[in-house]
This record gives sequence, structure tokens and C-alpha cells, in this order.
Amino acid sequence: MTPPTEQTGENSAVPPPVRRRPGGRTSRTRAQVLDALRAELGERGYDELTLDAVAARAGVHRATVYRRWRDVGGLLADLFEATRDDDWQPQDTGSLQGDLAALNHENQAALTAQPSIAAALVAASFRSEEAARGVRRLWEDRYARCEVIVSRAVLRGELPPHTDARQLLVAATAPLYHHLILLRTPPDPGLPDRAARTAVLAAAAGAFATPPPTGGAPA
Amino acid sequence: MTPPTEQTGENSAVPPPVRRRPGGRTSRTRAQVLDALRAELGERGYDELTLDAVAARAGVHRATVYRRWRDVGGLLADLFEATRDDDWQPQDTGSLQGDLAALNHENQAALTAQPSIAAALVAASFRSEEAARGVRRLWEDRYARCEVIVSRAVLRGELPPHTDARQLLVAATAPLYHHLILLRTPPDPGLPDRAARTAVLAAAAGAFATPPPTGGAPA
Repeated sequence: MTPPTEQTGENSAVPPPVRRRPGGRTSRTRAQVLDALRAELGERGYDELTLDAVAARAGVHRATVYRRWRDVGGLLADLFEATRDDDWQPQDTGSLQGDLAALNHENQAALTAQPSIAAALVAASFRSEEAARGVRRLWEDRYARCEVIVSRAVLRGELPPHTDARQLLVAATAPLYHHLILLRTPPDPGLPDRAARTAVLAAAAGAFATPPPTGGAPA
Repeated sequence: MTPPTEQTGENSAVPPPVRRRPGGRTSRTRAQVLDALRAELGERGYDELTLDAVAARAGVHRATVYRRWRDVGGLLADLFEATRDDDWQPQDTGSLQGDLAALNHENQAALTAQPSIAAALVAASFRSEEAARGVRRLWEDRYARCEVIVSRAVLRGELPPHTDARQLLVAATAPLYHHLILLRTPPDPGLPDRAARTAVLAAAAGAFATPPPTGGAPA
């Protein structure tokens, strides 16, 4: 789910191809520029980012890049938009614990990739209000897409119907981000599974149960 | 536990007084400079930090500040050292859930204080390798001090003896950091208690149990 990369949902450690919309040269140019932007961000980070370097790497005229994206903020905003437009979905492994573990493994791979665009975008969110806004909307989008993990588990009878999906998802995923982004401990290959299991055990004990909706008056 | 502030353990939302060591003018100067540094960091952030501004705010000669701390990195390193030297301890409320909730409330107060030195230092850790090192060591120090929460719970019989203290502490505290620092959602007054309760339920279900140490050969 790691928000700040365009992911295919298959293997987010491998930089996924940009989804090319039909539309000819303009969309090809956009794809080239966003690919170059990801590469520059991953290799050099936000502070070193320039439109000139992105244009040169993309093999696109500087004038085109300046006209269409204006500045680094415009490039980042478009990268976030492209990422929100992708068709990423969390894996369906057939069990709650499996789904949460797969999500954590995917996030760990994205955050520890060398270079990691995800980590670069999180870092950028501490440098630029525009990047912060983009990252925030992307997290929201990704967590919303992940709620299907919880509704599938409810349908399978693994969870009670009144389960707070967001709380469960944050409990399952936060330890991994905490370690990799904030504590900056070396990646622990066992953590994705352990954090998933912890959330499942807590859920089974009722940690994320919400009161059933009160029967309001019919609309 | 929020690492990056000097905290009294009583109420970390109120900027705590610097612990003044006996030692006369030198230690008074240090206290003044570190106070000014915290204020500048909280109000302006790392990017705007200058030795001149800190010296002016502290009412200390520029030359003294340049001689003793050299640059912004030297100031930050000393701030981290002062924070590691404090006598912060987690509250002892008499129960595991109470202790974890108190810790989360303290962290939430530190991270949402206006201005928040804790939040400024986390942001600085994405800007400077020196700040990143300092924050990393401080987290480590704070989590180590918090392990007493788990050992007290084991003594009270609330937890089995073979409980991974660090995993439990991270599970209890990570959701709060995740929301406030990464997702940047508005502070949720219920989250400190909920996250504590989730960790306690998971612990009761065996989420943090470690295998008992194997009986090796006597040394």
C-alpha cells in the first residue's frame, strides 16, 4: 500500500511501468517525464531535484517541461496524481492475516528498494507543503483501497461486522513504517508477518470492534 | 517517550525547564543556548536555524556560541546529548494499559504542542544526517527506558515472563506516531487509550510471546 509509488500490486520492489493512457505523444511525454522524475527522486532526493535534470533524463525538451509542469511542485503534484490514478489493489490471499502480511511485505519492499521512491517522497513531505499535501492524499487513497481487506474478512466470518477497518489497517501497518521511516532500524524480514499477526490477534480480541450503528429513524 | 524533547515526565506539553547542572557560568550558558535552540527550532524549524539567531535569542555572545558549538550540527548534537542525559522515566500507573496510555498521551501532547520541538526534530532528521543519527539514538534510549513498563507488568503477572518488550512498546506507540507524523491526521483524543488497549489485547493473546530461552550448557 505504501502510498508514494506507482505500484502494480504484483511486486512493488520492481519499479513498475508507468500505465500509459491512450493518447499519443502527450501521454508518452508525460510517462517519460514522470519516469525520469521517479529516478531523479530516488537517486538524488527532493533537495537536488531540478526541472533541467528531469528533462535531460527524460529526453524531453526543457521548454516542454517548463511549460507543462512549471516547477518542481508541479512535477510532484502530477506524480501524485498519476499514482492515485493507478489500479493498485491489495492482494487477495484468502485470509485476513495473509492479506495484511502481503501488504506489509509489499510496503517493506517499496521502502527498502534501492533507491526507494516511496522513502524519497516521505522525506520530501517534510521539505515542501505541496509534497506533504500530496503524500497525505495518497495515504488516504491507499488506506481507503485497503479497506476491502477488512470487508472480505467480515464476509468470510473472520471478523465481526462492526469492525473499524481503518484502525485495524493502521495497527497492522504502522509498526513497519515506524521502524523503517522513523526509527530507521534495519529491515527485519520477520516484521511484516509479525505485525500482521499482532493486528489479527488484537482484532479477534475485539480491539477494533465498533458499537453497532444505532437504528435511526427510517429516511 | 517522544524522543526529541527534554521532558520531565509530568507534562511534556509544557516546555520543561532545562535541568541545570551545578557548574556555574558555563552550564548556565549551555542551558540558555539550548533553550534558545529549542525555541528557534519549534518556531522556525531546522531550515531557518542559524547560530546568530540562537545566540541573539539566548543573549549570549555570538563568538561564544561559534567557539563552543561551531555550527548548527554541533548545536543539535548537544541538544540530543542533553536530552539523553535527562531523568525522564515513563509513568508508573499500576497497570500495563495505564502505563502505555500515559506514554501515548505524553507523546501526543509533545507532538501536538505549538510549537512542537519533537515534531521539528523529526522533520530535521529528514534534512540532516547528523540530526537523523541523533534522533535515532534518542528513540533507542527512550524505548530502552520504557522497557520497565513491560517488566513491571510481568512482575504483576499481567504478562508472561517471555514477552518481547520492544515489540509490545512499538505496537502500542506506533499508531500514534503514524497518524501524527506520517499520515498527519488531526490529533484524535481517543487514540492514545485505544492504541494502548489494542497492544494489551494483542499481548494477552500471545502476540509478543518469545520462546523461553533454551537451557544451554552451564557456563
